[in-house]
Amino acid sequence: MDDQLLIADRPFPSRLVLGTGGFPRMETLAAAVRASGTGMVTVALRRIDPAMRGSLVDTLDDCGVALLPNTAGCFTARDAVLTAQLAREAFETDWIKLEVIGDERTLLPDAPELLLAAEQLVADGFTVLPYTTDDPVLARRLQDVGCAAVMPLGSPIGSGQGILNPYNIALIVEQATVPVVLDAGVGTASDAALAMELGCDAVLCASAISRAHDPVAMARAIRAGVEGGRLARLAGRIPRRTYAQASTPHEGRPELDPDSVPAQ
Amino acid sequence: MDDQLLIADRPFPSRLVLGTGGFPRMETLAAAVRASGTGMVTVALRRIDPAMRGSLVDTLDDCGVALLPNTAGCFTARDAVLTAQLAREAFETDWIKLEVIGDERTLLPDAPELLLAAEQLVADGFTVLPYTTDDPVLARRLQDVGCAAVMPLGSPIGSGQGILNPYNIALIVEQATVPVVLDAGVGTASDAALAMELGCDAVLCASAISRAHDPVAMARAIRAGVEGGRLARLAGRIPRRTYAQASTPHEGRPELDPDSVPAQ
Amino acid sequence: MDDQLLIADRPFPSRLVLGTGGFPRMETLAAAVRASGTGMVTVALRRIDPAMRGSLVDTLDDCGVALLPNTAGCFTARDAVLTAQLAREAFETDWIKLEVIGDERTLLPDAPELLLAAEQLVADGFTVLPYTTDDPVLARRLQDVGCAAVMPLGSPIGSGQGILNPYNIALIVEQATVPVVLDAGVGTASDAALAMELGCDAVLCASAISRAHDPVAMARAIRAGVEGGRLARLAGRIPRRTYAQASTPHEGRPELDPDSVPAQ
Amino acid sequence: MDDQLLIADRPFPSRLVLGTGGFPRMETLAAAVRASGTGMVTVALRRIDPAMRGSLVDTLDDCGVALLPNTAGCFTARDAVLTAQLAREAFETDWIKLEVIGDERTLLPDAPELLLAAEQLVADGFTVLPYTTDDPVLARRLQDVGCAAVMPLGSPIGSGQGILNPYNIALIVEQATVPVVLDAGVGTASDAALAMELGCDAVLCASAISRAHDPVAMARAIRAGVEGGRLARLAGRIPRRTYAQASTPHEGRPELDPDSVPAQ
Repeated sequence: MDDQLLIADRPFPSRLVLGTGGFPRMETLAAAVRASGTGMVTVALRRIDPAMRGSLVDTLDDCGVALLPNTAGCFTARDAVLTAQLAREAFETDWIKLEVIGDERTLLPDAPELLLAAEQLVADGFTVLPYTTDDPVLARRLQDVGCAAVMPLGSPIGSGQGILNPYNIALIVEQATVPVVLDAGVGTASDAALAMELGCDAVLCASAISRAHDPVAMARAIRAGVEGGRLARLAGRIPRRTYAQASTPHEGRPELDPDSVPAQ
Repeated sequence: MDDQLLIADRPFPSRLVLGTGGFPRMETLAAAVRASGTGMVTVALRRIDPAMRGSLVDTLDDCGVALLPNTAGCFTARDAVLTAQLAREAFETDWIKLEVIGDERTLLPDAPELLLAAEQLVADGFTVLPYTTDDPVLARRLQDVGCAAVMPLGSPIGSGQGILNPYNIALIVEQATVPVVLDAGVGTASDAALAMELGCDAVLCASAISRAHDPVAMARAIRAGVEGGRLARLAGRIPRRTYAQASTPHEGRPELDPDSVPAQ
Repeated sequence: MDDQLLIADRPFPSRLVLGTGGFPRMETLAAAVRASGTGMVTVALRRIDPAMRGSLVDTLDDCGVALLPNTAGCFTARDAVLTAQLAREAFETDWIKLEVIGDERTLLPDAPELLLAAEQLVADGFTVLPYTTDDPVLARRLQDVGCAAVMPLGSPIGSGQGILNPYNIALIVEQATVPVVLDAGVGTASDAALAMELGCDAVLCASAISRAHDPVAMARAIRAGVEGGRLARLAGRIPRRTYAQASTPHEGRPELDPDSVPAQ
Repeated sequence: MDDQLLIADRPFPSRLVLGTGGFPRMETLAAAVRASGTGMVTVALRRIDPAMRGSLVDTLDDCGVALLPNTAGCFTARDAVLTAQLAREAFETDWIKLEVIGDERTLLPDAPELLLAAEQLVADGFTVLPYTTDDPVLARRLQDVGCAAVMPLGSPIGSGQGILNPYNIALIVEQATVPVVLDAGVGTASDAALAMELGCDAVLCASAISRAHDPVAMARAIRAGVEGGRLARLAGRIPRRTYAQASTPHEGRPELDPDSVPAQ
């Protein structure tokens, strides 16, 4: 396939990453994962009851998707690094979605702690995908310290507010040398499409799917949004114009190009 | 299929309608029509050189799509009614996309003339699909006089500005007893998805596809946008929240539902 | 004064027009009118208990403001014309704010009925100021039939949603040959400022002031917003840029103009 | 005055702070400072030709405003701290507007370096007002290390894009224990009014005034915007509603309150 997502040289069959939290039951999770077409899902070390970890991992293994452990619930670099190390053992992967939260109510990242943790985990051999604010300078610094991707938020986790500042996302994309994964805030298919049109390489969705009225249908919806947005980005959209442009403005005039199509 | 678009009791295989103007050549039009999956395309009586009408109609016939003639270029009710009657003969259909333009530069509709023309054409046996402003009262009056659908604009024709006033589109949908087709302004896949999420029944695209850098790829993109937006509308999106909601907020607490999935 | 509002050649001391409905008591209305600096207020013939009309008119007379009767509550051209005629007698003025409503829930105007009523009232010698949608074509037609101003809405009456479609307001201004008064939707000072920056000649506010927690303070707030927006329009704002522009980018370079100010 | 801005217990006569860069000539700067009513202006140590510093300082002294030196042009904490120390000597004040820039093209702040510099300057006895991103967590950390105010951006310096993410500004205000000064991005009066309505305590403007076509008129415009926005915040605006609310909905019903005003 000639438009494949690569993160740290690893190919993925889909530009949609799924979070596994919030699903009402395991069967729904499995069905949504399959409907989404995703190749990678996040799992939270902290939030999994060890007694249930097996059944979750088994379910996801059955789906044939890669696991990306995260450090959800960590509020300091130190805590995140420790959690990442435990996750490496528990899930047998050195890939980590790095979250260092700075506020309980908004779950927004803590920029300085995030950068610190990212540096330490890169040095410790991890493949680090940090959940970050939409700050273009921070995103560049994360990529400069060796992160394998940057994952800026559209709006707070679970808020469904979409992309509050598309300008910042576009700036992040413009300067990125690693994949940009829009993470957090997506509420529906058009949000996912917009992220891809802005140039993001992938989208991560959790609550938008798991808490939708019909999670499996929403997984298909957002999959289509991601695919449509990606196609549109590659297809080259028309510019925005202040005034109208008739689709065929040459009414009554002779056609210069015999193959041009004189109709709307 | 259980989610099929019906207009005037006629089923359509797709919720995307294509305009045929602006394509660089006939082959591209045909390929885009096929890629879009559409079942109906608009054609402009006025703008077609009669000598070429045959080749356009043949091409579209080969694609197996229904033709929807429009009254593009008409500035009065009288002119639009006459054009519709000519189109009925030329294309052998009593379906008409009614356009009565009020301004050359923006190609915005003229509300009073539009309503007048719609009344006359309905009385004359036409199946009338009017291109209208995003005014909810006008949309309701058009449906009240017997139009088979209403086609509010998102922004001016060919402007690619998307949906400037989603609130009005939502009001139109809320009160509609006929299908609502978002017409004009769509620039890219996310615009089409948003239209469907607002509750529109279909989307009409012309320039966004025909003038894209790669029209066939954009036809696929917008098709995915329409499908994603429709699925999302049916799936029931999460509400927008002011603050974050962790995808798994019950960390450390006993699970009430043994099947609920304790992970992100 | 060299930047005075003229409507139908009549000068006004302020670019803010006040609605008189919704005030908790007559004293508050009087205080808000004075704080606003307005020279004209609207009054609803229908809604005034005839027994109280005297006290309202007396209060407003004491404030020294012109009365602009409106046709609030009318749903047809016929009803609006009749109400205007009654208002002319009751208030002894041939100025009328024309409202023809098309929907009870949104109080949005009915475009065709509005145009019809406007034509009839102009023919009957009224100075007509129509409350209209934000449709640029309708606004032009209203001015073409002889209205003395056009009063497009920002959003529904009392909704406080501000200006939902600034693009349409800018189009209306661009082609206007009569004053444009933004009417309905203003919720706060920045909405009023934006209306003026878009080029409106004045702003009409009712609920934003009368239903604010402190109506008199809000009258002052919106007055400042109108004045600030007008000044900004005339001052010539900087263009929007994609990237930053340092306020003093010529650091370290010799000054070409000895009077230029080398500091931020 | 009972609504006075206090920063570090120091009262200011105005909620508008002015940048001094970009003015075409010294006389215009002086006139704009006076028209703005400001009590404090920023000056850039680096950008001032020492030979001209005297004339700038004299001009501003004549205007009776306090000087707030900034560290414009610094890209590391180390450089910013050094520049602040030089500024303290040059301008004889320990107040400093701290800028640590992370990107030349957007002039966006570098979050980790900014926090580091802030800590050091607070420890060194400075009254620190940091120019920061609109990240609520970073803003809280800056206040936690002892900054006297936080100055989040609306959009990049000189871009005139206004407030790209009002949600973040509202979050910053919600949790602030020090004054919040909206800094950067304001293009016109309505932007300044919106900042104040979101709850900011003051606004800093530079290019919006100095580069306007008429800087003195724009100083008055933005002054009015700030005042209007502040008044509106205190007055308590009406809520946004989905549907209309007639300013007098009790038409025809008996008045419960004899003083309520039965008119629009």
